[in-house]
Amino acid sequence: MTDALADARLAALRALLDAHGLDAILLSRAANKRYYSGFRLSDAEGPTSGWSGSLLVTRDANLILADSRYTEQASLEAPGWTLVQTFGAMAVDLPPMLLDREIESLGLEAAVVSHAEWAALAAAAPGVELHAMDDELVPLRILKTPVEVDAIGRACALADACLAHLVEWIRPGMTEREVAWELEGWFRSHGAEGLAFDTIVLAGARAAMPHGRPSDARVEPGNVLLIDFGCIVDGYRSDTTRTLFVGDVPADIRRYHDAVREAQALAIDALAVGVDGQDIDAIARERIAREGVEPYGHGLGHGIGLQTHEPPSVRRGVSSRLEAGMVFSVEPGIYLPGVTGIRIEDIVVLEAGGPRLLTAAPREAQVIR
Amino acid sequence: MTDALADARLAALRALLDAHGLDAILLSRAANKRYYSGFRLSDAEGPTSGWSGSLLVTRDANLILADSRYTEQASLEAPGWTLVQTFGAMAVDLPPMLLDREIESLGLEAAVVSHAEWAALAAAAPGVELHAMDDELVPLRILKTPVEVDAIGRACALADACLAHLVEWIRPGMTEREVAWELEGWFRSHGAEGLAFDTIVLAGARAAMPHGRPSDARVEPGNVLLIDFGCIVDGYRSDTTRTLFVGDVPADIRRYHDAVREAQALAIDALAVGVDGQDIDAIARERIAREGVEPYGHGLGHGIGLQTHEPPSVRRGVSSRLEAGMVFSVEPGIYLPGVTGIRIEDIVVLEAGGPRLLTAAPREAQVIR
Repeated sequence: MTDALADARLAALRALLDAHGLDAILLSRAANKRYYSGFRLSDAEGPTSGWSGSLLVTRDANLILADSRYTEQASLEAPGWTLVQTFGAMAVDLPPMLLDREIESLGLEAAVVSHAEWAALAAAAPGVELHAMDDELVPLRILKTPVEVDAIGRACALADACLAHLVEWIRPGMTEREVAWELEGWFRSHGAEGLAFDTIVLAGARAAMPHGRPSDARVEPGNVLLIDFGCIVDGYRSDTTRTLFVGDVPADIRRYHDAVREAQALAIDALAVGVDGQDIDAIARERIAREGVEPYGHGLGHGIGLQTHEPPSVRRGVSSRLEAGMVFSVEPGIYLPGVTGIRIEDIVVLEAGGPRLLTAAPREAQVIR
Repeated sequence: MTDALADARLAALRALLDAHGLDAILLSRAANKRYYSGFRLSDAEGPTSGWSGSLLVTRDANLILADSRYTEQASLEAPGWTLVQTFGAMAVDLPPMLLDREIESLGLEAAVVSHAEWAALAAAAPGVELHAMDDELVPLRILKTPVEVDAIGRACALADACLAHLVEWIRPGMTEREVAWELEGWFRSHGAEGLAFDTIVLAGARAAMPHGRPSDARVEPGNVLLIDFGCIVDGYRSDTTRTLFVGDVPADIRRYHDAVREAQALAIDALAVGVDGQDIDAIARERIAREGVEPYGHGLGHGIGLQTHEPPSVRRGVSSRLEAGMVFSVEPGIYLPGVTGIRIEDIVVLEAGGPRLLTAAPREAQVIR
C-alpha cells in the first residue's frame, strides 16, 4: 500500500469521526485491519487471535493493539502505526487507553464484536459512549479502486487457470476430496496467498447441497461435478463456480444448465449503474422458474474484496443501488435434492459503462471424459 | 454419536434451563452445534454460514435452524433434530419462533453472538429476556469423556506420525511454505478431517514470532525450525509444537531448548487434580527466567477438544482449578526477537492419578541434516 493510498483511506475514516461525533473508532474486522494498516490475519486466526491487531484510530493517532504473540508481526506489517502492546481482554486493557486519550465517544464494529465483549467494555468504561459502526463503514470499502479491482482480477484469473487445469486433469472415478486437494495444491504452487474459503466439490446428487463439503463420493459419469472455489491474491479474493458434466448427462440436466446459464446472462446484461440489486435477482429467478423448478434459495450475489462475502448483497428482499466500482458475484442455481445441482458463478465489476467480467472461464458446460 | 450419549448431553444442557430459569437456549458456537447435534461447520464457514445450524433447545423440543444452503446437510447430519428453515437474519426469523413456543427467557452465547445481532434481537423481541450463557456452558464440555479423549488422542497420534515423516523429509534450503504444504498434504492423505489451525512453520530468527505465517524464508543451517501444527480427527483437534535444530546450532540455542524442555517437564510433573493452573504456569515461567531471558508472553496452555482453543486457560492471572478429564496444552517458550525462538507444546489429559501425555513425539531436539 502506498503512503498516499493509506493516507486517503485514513482521511475517509476520520471524516466518519466528525460525521458521527466520535472521538475514536476501534476496527476489529480482519479485513479492516488489513485495509487500513496492512496487518494480516488469516481467516483461521479469527477465533484465536482475540483482539490482536485491532486498530484504534483517534483524531490524531493511529494505534495498532497487539498482544505478545503478534507484536513483532504488527510492527513489521504496519510500520506507520504506533504499536501498543496488550496483555489481556479488551475490557481490561482498552479503558485506560481511552481515559488517557480523553476518548468519551467510541465507534465499534458491533457486527463483529461479541455481545459479551461489548457489555464488558460498557461496564468497565462507564464514561465512554459506545456507538455501533457497521453500515457506516461499508461505503469506505464498497467501491473498489483500480488497484483493488486489479487484485481481484488477478485472483479470478488464477482461478480460471486452475479450472482449466482441473478440466483436463479430473477423471471419472476420482473422489471429491482428491479433486479439492489437487485444486488447492495447484493454487499454492501457483502463487495464491491462500484459499478464499473451503473448496466445494460435489458430485452428482450431492451438488444439490449449496454448501456441502468434499467427501469420498466419486465423480459419477452421467451426472455433474460442481466446483465452487476461490483463492486469495494480495489479500483479495476470487469466487467461481462451474458445474461440469461427467461424460454424457441426461437431457434434463443439460436443459437446467442452459437455464442457469441464461439466467446468469440475463442478470449480467441487466446490470447498470443505478439499478436495484433485488431487481437483478428477480430477473435470474424468473428465468429459472420458467423451467418449472424452484429457483435457488440463496441470494444471486455478494460483494467480494478483502472478504469473500461483503456488501453489496444482491438478493430479493434487499434493496441495494448498484454503483460503479462495486465488485460482486452473480451465481444463480437450481438444486434438485436427490437428483442434481447446478450453479454458475462469476465475478463482475460494475463500471460506468456497464458490467465487466473478471472471471473468464467458459460458461458453457465443460465435459469431463 | 450414540443416542445415549446425545441424550446425556442434552439432559445436562436442559438442567441449565432449570438452573437459570430459562425457557430455551440458542447455541451458536460451531463446536456446540456439532457436540449436541452432529451438525458440522468448518472453521472457515464461520463468517459466511450466518446463524445456520444454530440449535434452539427448549424444554421439550430440539430444533436445528438452517437456511436453504444448509437444510439438506442439517437433515443428514442431525437426523434426530427438528429442522426449521430460516430465510433471513436472526432478529427477523427468531422472534416469531419464540412467540409460538411461549419462550420468554432465552439463553444466548454472548461470547460468539455479535453485539449487533444481540441488539437487533432485543429490539425485535421486546417480550423476551435475553441472558448471556457463556461460562455457564463451559462445565458441559470441559471434562472430556473417554470417547472424546480417544478422538483427541488419535488426532495427536496422527500429528506424531506426521512429524516423524517431516523430520526425515525436511532438508536445509527448503522454504517454510514447502514444509507447511508437505505437512498439510500428509494430513490429508492420512485421514485427517482438516487442519486444527493455520500451520506455523518458522525458520531461524522468524521463530521469535509466536504466530507467524509460513513464508518463502528458507530452513537455515545453524538455527531452528519451529513447527506448530494440528489436525482434526472426528471433530477433535491436536496441537503440537516442536523446535527442530537445523544442522549444528550454537550452544546458547541448545541451552535455551533444554530450558524450555525442562520448564515443560517441571510443569507437567506438577499437574494434579485440584492444582491451580496459574501455579503451573509460574513453575514453567520461573525455570525459564533462571536462564536470564524473558519467559513467553502467552499462556502456558489452553484446553483443546472440538475447538483448538477452549477452556481451561492455564496461565498467569487466571485462577483455574484443574480437574480429572481436562485436556489441555503445555507450551512454554523463549522468544528472542531477531535471534531465534523455541517452543515445545504437548497435549495432556489430566486423570485421577495425574497427567497422561496424548502426544508422543520426542521432546529432545531432533536434528535436520
